[in-house]
Amino acid sequence: MDESDTGTDAGRDESDAVGADGSGAPHGGSADRDAATGGRPRGECGRLVLAATPLGETGDASPRLRAALAEADVVAAEDTRRTRALAAALGVAIGGRVVSFYDQVESARIPALVESIASGETVLLVTDAGMPSVSDPGYSLVDATITAGHRVTCLPGPSAVTTALALSGLPVDRFCFDGFAPRKPGKRREFFATLRDEPRASVFFESPHRLAACLDDAVAVLGPDRRAAVCREMTKTYEEVRRGTLGGLAAWAAEGVRGEISVVLAGAAPRRRSAADLVGEVERRVDGGARLKDACAQVGEEQGVSKRELYQAVLTARG
Amino acid sequence: MDESDTGTDAGRDESDAVGADGSGAPHGGSADRDAATGGRPRGECGRLVLAATPLGETGDASPRLRAALAEADVVAAEDTRRTRALAAALGVAIGGRVVSFYDQVESARIPALVESIASGETVLLVTDAGMPSVSDPGYSLVDATITAGHRVTCLPGPSAVTTALALSGLPVDRFCFDGFAPRKPGKRREFFATLRDEPRASVFFESPHRLAACLDDAVAVLGPDRRAAVCREMTKTYEEVRRGTLGGLAAWAAEGVRGEISVVLAGAAPRRRSAADLVGEVERRVDGGARLKDACAQVGEEQGVSKRELYQAVLTARG
Repeated sequence: MDESDTGTDAGRDESDAVGADGSGAPHGGSADRDAATGGRPRGECGRLVLAATPLGETGDASPRLRAALAEADVVAAEDTRRTRALAAALGVAIGGRVVSFYDQVESARIPALVESIASGETVLLVTDAGMPSVSDPGYSLVDATITAGHRVTCLPGPSAVTTALALSGLPVDRFCFDGFAPRKPGKRREFFATLRDEPRASVFFESPHRLAACLDDAVAVLGPDRRAAVCREMTKTYEEVRRGTLGGLAAWAAEGVRGEISVVLAGAAPRRRSAADLVGEVERRVDGGARLKDACAQVGEEQGVSKRELYQAVLTARG
Repeated sequence: MDESDTGTDAGRDESDAVGADGSGAPHGGSADRDAATGGRPRGECGRLVLAATPLGETGDASPRLRAALAEADVVAAEDTRRTRALAAALGVAIGGRVVSFYDQVESARIPALVESIASGETVLLVTDAGMPSVSDPGYSLVDATITAGHRVTCLPGPSAVTTALALSGLPVDRFCFDGFAPRKPGKRREFFATLRDEPRASVFFESPHRLAACLDDAVAVLGPDRRAAVCREMTKTYEEVRRGTLGGLAAWAAEGVRGEISVVLAGAAPRRRSAADLVGEVERRVDGGARLKDACAQVGEEQGVSKRELYQAVLTARG
């Protein structure tokens, strides 16, 4: 869940190694399941393996992750130093080539990685923490691998999103996740405005030095009474979860906060949309060829608003 | 991610054991980190530990989960048979009492579990698969534990939600999750209507025998061209991920599908809301005491619509 720029130099020189030795062309053996844990046995169909990594506690790494680190032909890592440190902490020797894979080099790296997979190799993709392609590099490599007709599998594991939801103590049977909150106050307030009527619990990340200003904006847009939780340093030594109202949390954060932060906001209490809110939706369907009465009936049913009331609102809006 | 009714009888007779022996009252020792892996050492402050469990592959269980199963004083399990089977597959002997904890008994179980924690015991909460309290029993126990002033920690791990997102090959830097799709066609269409303008990728669960009808409804409401992925039996022997358009996936599903299903829908292409859509929002702020011009400026800025255009739309709607 690091925001940017991690490992800017790490492993850059290793990039040429990807796919450099095209040994082990696929012999058409069908994908068997044990091989999803890593590159063994070589010569099989190549694949991309997305693996979740610990948020901070080595003991959260699964045996399949350990095996994959040891056995993959190529390890593509958001920050190669952090991945090497993780392997060392796990007592695992990385057997394959290690390649850096972060936002700024992502598109440049993809052709060679897909070629490695095409040649029968297993490419393991890991980020600094959590699940690749959820708020981290990865999606475009997955897409390119699929487009080239190769297999993609996943080693499930830690995610800051689900961990924060569980720790929040809030109802989270429905939730949404928006990555990092915008940095600029204007954009941040717009972001909170989109959550004003959001019925789902909402998770976002924030850097510690912006948390106070961010929660102040949340209070300004959503009011002080919305319930929320701030999760700090999850699974690490100084793990802390603060639960309360936005107003109370903003006051607490004003004193200064450190560490990696995930925020969970309770969903908004349900509010019915009024007929006036739905006029635009009806008009769009009419523009698309629907009869006005049909459009009113349809939108009314979808949104729980009377079709007569909606019809009147459209006529009023048309003047 | 089972839908309901799992383990209706399993472990019901074990419930009385919870908190029955109140030994190990807290001696005020501060929470230390190793103890978050399970109940050891006894006599420390009690706590609730939420632990994620594998989706189907034993090798996805972390060392901390294994330790917690062995060492917790009480294991509260959505289905005690499945949890005992998991422990057996991991070669772990559950040391503490095992108590069933599923939707129908949740509220009845909570007082005794909180009492166990109050008496200094560690209660481990696990569901059939994935992270407790995300689409599964758990939230109310977390809430009760926090309210009673006790500690809640989490052992991160597998989640069907993040695994499906990673496997989907879709842009998932923002996403939402809605649990199981509604069963009834009318409610299901309403559900898809709420996703029509949803910019985030969307994840939901569906039972295999309803998948074809569900995707037909998705096509009816969202059109055949929205991109999506159907993930089946994730991490299991017959794992399969189908990626394509809703229309293509509906045609595929019509032939019949088995296994546990997670669906990922691509987010909607951004569409600007028109001034007419926002009249209701402006009027609500006016009702709340804002001046009309201020409300137009504020809503206009939030939604990227000209305040003049919005002002005109309000006047037109007022007639």
